[in-house]
Amino acid sequence: MNVTSLNGEPTVVQVAGSVSAPAGFRAAGIACGIKKTGNLDLALIASDTPAAAAAVFTLNKAQAAPVVVSKARLKTSGGRGHVVVINSGCANACTGPAGLKTAEAMADAAADALRADRSHVLVASTGVIGVALDRDVVCAGIAKASTALSSSGGPDAARAIMTTDPFPKEAAAEVTTASGRFRVGGIAKGSGMIEPLMATMLAVITTDAGVAPALLQRALSAVVNDTFNAISVDGECSTNDCVFALANGASGVTLVDRDFDVLVEALRRVCEPLAIGIVRGGEGATKVVTIEVTGGASNDEAKKAARAIANSPLVKTAVHGADPNWGRLVAVAGRAGVEFDLERARVRIGDVELFAGGRPFDERAPQASEHLTGKDVLLHVDLGTGGAGRARMWTCDLSADYVKINAEYRT
Amino acid sequence: MNVTSLNGEPTVVQVAGSVSAPAGFRAAGIACGIKKTGNLDLALIASDTPAAAAAVFTLNKAQAAPVVVSKARLKTSGGRGHVVVINSGCANACTGPAGLKTAEAMADAAADALRADRSHVLVASTGVIGVALDRDVVCAGIAKASTALSSSGGPDAARAIMTTDPFPKEAAAEVTTASGRFRVGGIAKGSGMIEPLMATMLAVITTDAGVAPALLQRALSAVVNDTFNAISVDGECSTNDCVFALANGASGVTLVDRDFDVLVEALRRVCEPLAIGIVRGGEGATKVVTIEVTGGASNDEAKKAARAIANSPLVKTAVHGADPNWGRLVAVAGRAGVEFDLERARVRIGDVELFAGGRPFDERAPQASEHLTGKDVLLHVDLGTGGAGRARMWTCDLSADYVKINAEYRT
Repeated sequence: MNVTSLNGEPTVVQVAGSVSAPAGFRAAGIACGIKKTGNLDLALIASDTPAAAAAVFTLNKAQAAPVVVSKARLKTSGGRGHVVVINSGCANACTGPAGLKTAEAMADAAADALRADRSHVLVASTGVIGVALDRDVVCAGIAKASTALSSSGGPDAARAIMTTDPFPKEAAAEVTTASGRFRVGGIAKGSGMIEPLMATMLAVITTDAGVAPALLQRALSAVVNDTFNAISVDGECSTNDCVFALANGASGVTLVDRDFDVLVEALRRVCEPLAIGIVRGGEGATKVVTIEVTGGASNDEAKKAARAIANSPLVKTAVHGADPNWGRLVAVAGRAGVEFDLERARVRIGDVELFAGGRPFDERAPQASEHLTGKDVLLHVDLGTGGAGRARMWTCDLSADYVKINAEYRT
Repeated sequence: MNVTSLNGEPTVVQVAGSVSAPAGFRAAGIACGIKKTGNLDLALIASDTPAAAAAVFTLNKAQAAPVVVSKARLKTSGGRGHVVVINSGCANACTGPAGLKTAEAMADAAADALRADRSHVLVASTGVIGVALDRDVVCAGIAKASTALSSSGGPDAARAIMTTDPFPKEAAAEVTTASGRFRVGGIAKGSGMIEPLMATMLAVITTDAGVAPALLQRALSAVVNDTFNAISVDGECSTNDCVFALANGASGVTLVDRDFDVLVEALRRVCEPLAIGIVRGGEGATKVVTIEVTGGASNDEAKKAARAIANSPLVKTAVHGADPNWGRLVAVAGRAGVEFDLERARVRIGDVELFAGGRPFDERAPQASEHLTGKDVLLHVDLGTGGAGRARMWTCDLSADYVKINAEYRT
């Protein structure tokens, strides 16, 4: 294994692939009977050897049992991970001591099936809150899934972690350096209860680069901040959000501290499309909305305004109806609790400026409406403070289907 | 006029009536041509004599022209008010210097028509943001409305300030004291862009008690905090929110500082039904949801949690679907940024406890679902901190109609 830093200018390109794209990773997704529909509901992602592990967990104070268990095991292992086990169809959240035992049993079953150290297992669950997860069913499923692991199993794993997601989310990137080539792969799932405070619903990122746990954690946290933490479907932060990263070194390329930027860029190339995929597959979503805020007193203020816009039901319904209602953008920016100057503020929809210098340009509304009929929409608000603060977030429109999905979720 | 304080125990009862119920107030609502539908769109509320005036305005930094004008006039008059003029169908917000001139012209026209001091006029507008309000049309309307003023005109005024409201909101209360009897009346309008930070969309409260401006302001602010500031339809705070109060003393009863509690109770009896009316008439609403939060580390923390629940699209859609999804209530409380103890938290829907001691009672779900099918729903979350902090808020469910109304608002 090459332990020197990268030489020359590495190139990072997105490639087709999933969580099992990096060397030395296998994945599986099976139906074990948690979902009554018979759909895939159990995923395993395994490295051939123990890997460095990093994670970002939900900040929700009502933490689900698997979050509690994964945190504890990661601490015990000192940042090592070998297997990730995830079920869908049941969140194992608010399930008391019995739920905690089930999450422990899941992790132990995965460790035993793959002869891994029990502290080297990360576990996650997604689905309905407050319903008991059948321990026997899920543990039998884990034994079965462990025999199905393969280097082409990523897409099945991506499907097996879906709940209301309309499509699976997977991405991969390849980095070519003077010292060799390595890959990053990942899967993620949405699609309701999405407004990550520190992480999104569930994502697993793998890489065959060799990375020390501390460096992997630092890079993961940085990337999550600009990707999974920069999306919102409905302003909700769930009890189960986790992003896991495993780095097993199988490519022979090792990244050290001075390669931080390359690692971040490689992770970003996987996390950004996964995050945008979560938004595109948001409950009832028909459009991905990119929100750019400039002219903030600080980046934090710009982010605060962008988040308020991303969560505004009036903005999201206007986008849904292709209504270039810039007044709602001004109103939200004005109530976002940040510095804002109405006379110097500017609002742009696509590349059509609709408000500037304190006055509207409604004659341009038809062009803006045209832009809003597309599947990818850009909203730009300059807060008019003259400051350099800027931020970007992604959200989706709010449709009647969001209401339908969530009014009938358990019925 | 009796200038002593009240004696004995005053009684406060709600009575039928509107903003013109108190003695010495007249109101009118006419159609002057701002709304293309021909519906009522201009309201005047006038005291027979100059009255004490108080107001609470939106904290939105994108303040509409009428908000700017009303603030300035109230300051100039030192808390005196004679006439309130309100148009619907156009918010006169984000309309630049021309919009400001129009708001000034509206106020001047109302003063001139009623021979009032120009500084004694309060002006408000509601409707679409960023569209110019036709100065000639509205000023001609004001002249016409001034001839229609009557003591039975309150209901017309309540109709004339409506936008997407499905019904008018009006309320009145009568206070009987040893020193005499006085009344409080009011009208309000919603129904989207409702999450008051300091005030709600528009409300006008009148009383024929004699009250000094400072006392009126203090009582109004206190009552608004627990009524209009305790409701949310969609978490939006508009550019135009105002609550005005006028006290003309025509009843012969005068309230002084030590009558603060009576004044607050009398105002509350009018403001609370108006606030709940705004929620009941919220865009697409089919239910009024009362949210009670207890066991908070402080009242502020309880209010923060209640507000997060009131604005949660997942909670609001579950209520819409009569789904007793207590897990969503736990998830929101956990992400609300307040102290929260999952093991000691409790969730109640109606009087059915569904979560306590860290475990669910799903066998009770059918009773809870039954409660949720009603038009008035109670959600109670105890945050489990053992603290005495408590708060109450009112919100509505989120229906597909909310999306429909707001996706098609201007089309």
